Amino acid sequence: MAIWLEQASADFEQKFAAFLTTKREVSEDVNATVRDIINDVRHRGDAALAHYSRKFDGIDFAAVPMRVTTDEIDAAIAAVDTSVIEALELAARRIEKHHARQMPKDDIYEDDIGVGLGSRWTAIEAVGLYVPGGTASYPSSVLMNAVPAKVAGVERIVMVVPANGGAVNPAVLAAARIAGVEEIYRIGGAQAVAALAYGTETIAPVAKIVGPGNAYVAAAKRQVFGTVGIDMIAGPSEVLVIADRDNDPDWLAADLLAQAEHDRGAQSILITDDAELGKAVEAAVERQLKRLSRSETAAASWADFGAIILVEKLTDAIPLANRIAAEHLELAIDDPDALMAHIRNAGAIFVGRHTPEVIGDYVGGSNHVLPTARSARFSSGLSVLDFVKRTSILRLGPEQLRQLAPAAITLARSEGLDAHARSVSIRLNPES
Amino acid sequence: MAIWLEQASADFEQKFAAFLTTKREVSEDVNATVRDIINDVRHRGDAALAHYSRKFDGIDFAAVPMRVTTDEIDAAIAAVDTSVIEALELAARRIEKHHARQMPKDDIYEDDIGVGLGSRWTAIEAVGLYVPGGTASYPSSVLMNAVPAKVAGVERIVMVVPANGGAVNPAVLAAARIAGVEEIYRIGGAQAVAALAYGTETIAPVAKIVGPGNAYVAAAKRQVFGTVGIDMIAGPSEVLVIADRDNDPDWLAADLLAQAEHDRGAQSILITDDAELGKAVEAAVERQLKRLSRSETAAASWADFGAIILVEKLTDAIPLANRIAAEHLELAIDDPDALMAHIRNAGAIFVGRHTPEVIGDYVGGSNHVLPTARSARFSSGLSVLDFVKRTSILRLGPEQLRQLAPAAITLARSEGLDAHARSVSIRLNPES
Repeated sequence: MAIWLEQASADFEQKFAAFLTTKREVSEDVNATVRDIINDVRHRGDAALAHYSRKFDGIDFAAVPMRVTTDEIDAAIAAVDTSVIEALELAARRIEKHHARQMPKDDIYEDDIGVGLGSRWTAIEAVGLYVPGGTASYPSSVLMNAVPAKVAGVERIVMVVPANGGAVNPAVLAAARIAGVEEIYRIGGAQAVAALAYGTETIAPVAKIVGPGNAYVAAAKRQVFGTVGIDMIAGPSEVLVIADRDNDPDWLAADLLAQAEHDRGAQSILITDDAELGKAVEAAVERQLKRLSRSETAAASWADFGAIILVEKLTDAIPLANRIAAEHLELAIDDPDALMAHIRNAGAIFVGRHTPEVIGDYVGGSNHVLPTARSARFSSGLSVLDFVKRTSILRLGPEQLRQLAPAAITLARSEGLDAHARSVSIRLNPES
Repeated sequence: MAIWLEQASADFEQKFAAFLTTKREVSEDVNATVRDIINDVRHRGDAALAHYSRKFDGIDFAAVPMRVTTDEIDAAIAAVDTSVIEALELAARRIEKHHARQMPKDDIYEDDIGVGLGSRWTAIEAVGLYVPGGTASYPSSVLMNAVPAKVAGVERIVMVVPANGGAVNPAVLAAARIAGVEEIYRIGGAQAVAALAYGTETIAPVAKIVGPGNAYVAAAKRQVFGTVGIDMIAGPSEVLVIADRDNDPDWLAADLLAQAEHDRGAQSILITDDAELGKAVEAAVERQLKRLSRSETAAASWADFGAIILVEKLTDAIPLANRIAAEHLELAIDDPDALMAHIRNAGAIFVGRHTPEVIGDYVGGSNHVLPTARSARFSSGLSVLDFVKRTSILRLGPEQLRQLAPAAITLARSEGLDAHARSVSIRLNPES
């Protein structure tokens, strides 16, 4: 049973504020272990990778090559059901098309006094993509990370994926092939992150590492940050559904459970102005739960973190939604545009009753890597921008320098930076 | 004396590779201290701020208010030299004009099958700006951080600045006023970062914290990351000057020293194809060093981390520059555009002999907060994009859902996510 919060009750603000700050993750302190593994990979390279892969994944690189071969990828494609391949291809095409619009444009111009200014965008040269092993090994996530990197123009995309006993999920290899990723190593954990950041005899280092992972992978990404770039550290997934009375409770229950089945720490929230609908959804959740293969996970998530919030009118949902800053926000209401105009903090918005969030997970075209744990207040989902960087350009001639020099010299001197002032003044008067 | 590296020598690659990975910062481990301070501020709020401000800054908040008053800001403006105020105003205008061009545009469209897709940008609601105390308290940095936030549409900008004995640098207050920042607290260190992230009785929390600081501030920013957003953690500054023989050695020496005077860990590098010029610049550096007020810092930086790299031809500088990925790159050569076309990794490029990097520090209009320590390989300087975030939008009608449903269901099932599949299928067939 999820908790109920009612806006009309006197202690609503207090309860809602506490609900907002509920921790949904146990943060394991694995920093020391991870530090040792990273140091070992830095110093022993491939030998360290062989050691940890034997220890954690039961793989012997004397018998199975660390790098996945082209033959293996070919075989994976052949082994995966055609309908899955076609669905991945459709998803990749749609993701590519949408993300191509995100490519930022250079802006080089001269201002009114003739100073040349500019922003020039270039792709990151090499990117590492971490793909988790086991049940969290999702081919859809391969597309969501690799396709935007390709669109950005990243020349080298290196995929790492732990392979228990040696075998990599064929659908993951198929997704990699579809996304154009061919450099794949069957390594995982902190050791894979270290190899990507520092390089080994076999693996050339990359400049940025993206992709989800367990506590060890997350800690390793934090530790190598600075040496390489990293994407956000994703927490458990969440959905907020804002719904009026004119909804089929079963549809909404299905959406809440799609989120809850991900992880015991996932969170599903319904905000409605109709108590009857809330009760009907709650009942539908209980009914549907019984039929799910991952019912244990979904039930735990719903019991521990699920919530139904009853508001007096739908517009009251707006400030709550902005405080929750959900990763996924569904607007299952009559006039979603009117409400959407006031939504400021959300990773992604799914508009109307016919846009279940799951479409965005796979084939909508938008990215499913989105800010979790209220971080949509200050960050954005994965996009082409995560795979490019901007160089700013400044160009003065003698005349522009003469015009701007006095202010620059004044500020440099006021900050006590003589050599700064001199670097400008010396160009005006060689005797200065 | 800086080191000399010559491309023609047999061990160049080895020496250059070692040079690239030289550490220029001693990383103090202050994590435990910082963790205690943050916890204390979370639990005791203003009382903790009063305690640490008394202890570290010698301020008694019973005597001096924590929040800087409007009268104090007015008095600061009056106390600062008019030429400095005018220079700050000129800088602010130029920064504002340039950054206004960086504002990303929403992109809402329908694709060929009628799916609505979109990217909507909104400003972060509240941003904290850390300004260091003491000699590193730079009014120019206040403008470089606050003006882009204003351009982005951030409604609330909160400045924190430690004030030894109670007084804040008047030029910093003047810069804040010019940038439109009026909520200013005289607190600093990890306690100020904690107050911004978690809030206290007096200070409402923000969603993102930007601005430079010492080891305690940097560690605190890393620790609160996730609860709030943070900007990059800046390391010591660096400049790379690529120069041909047709340069005044004194100009180049002045530019190298402008960087070196910042910090003993700063780095100044000259790449040239002319040994004579290299020697002349080296001599000019020694000459000019004697006349600098911060000659001790500049001399230490130049001796420990300065370098002159001699290449056979200027185009050989390109791969080296891309590996160095300098924060600041000056192109003091005849045809800078030809070379610039091949530069991929640089925070900012200063084009031609009349564009000393210092202009970019103050009045160029571009931002002076730039990626250090080779991070230009994967990150960008501060911009309006750091103060906005993107919400993605997806909108399907029944017909679009019908078209995309089969692929979504196929992928969900192949990933073992039944509830995902059901959230789509239930909308096609209520009996499913």
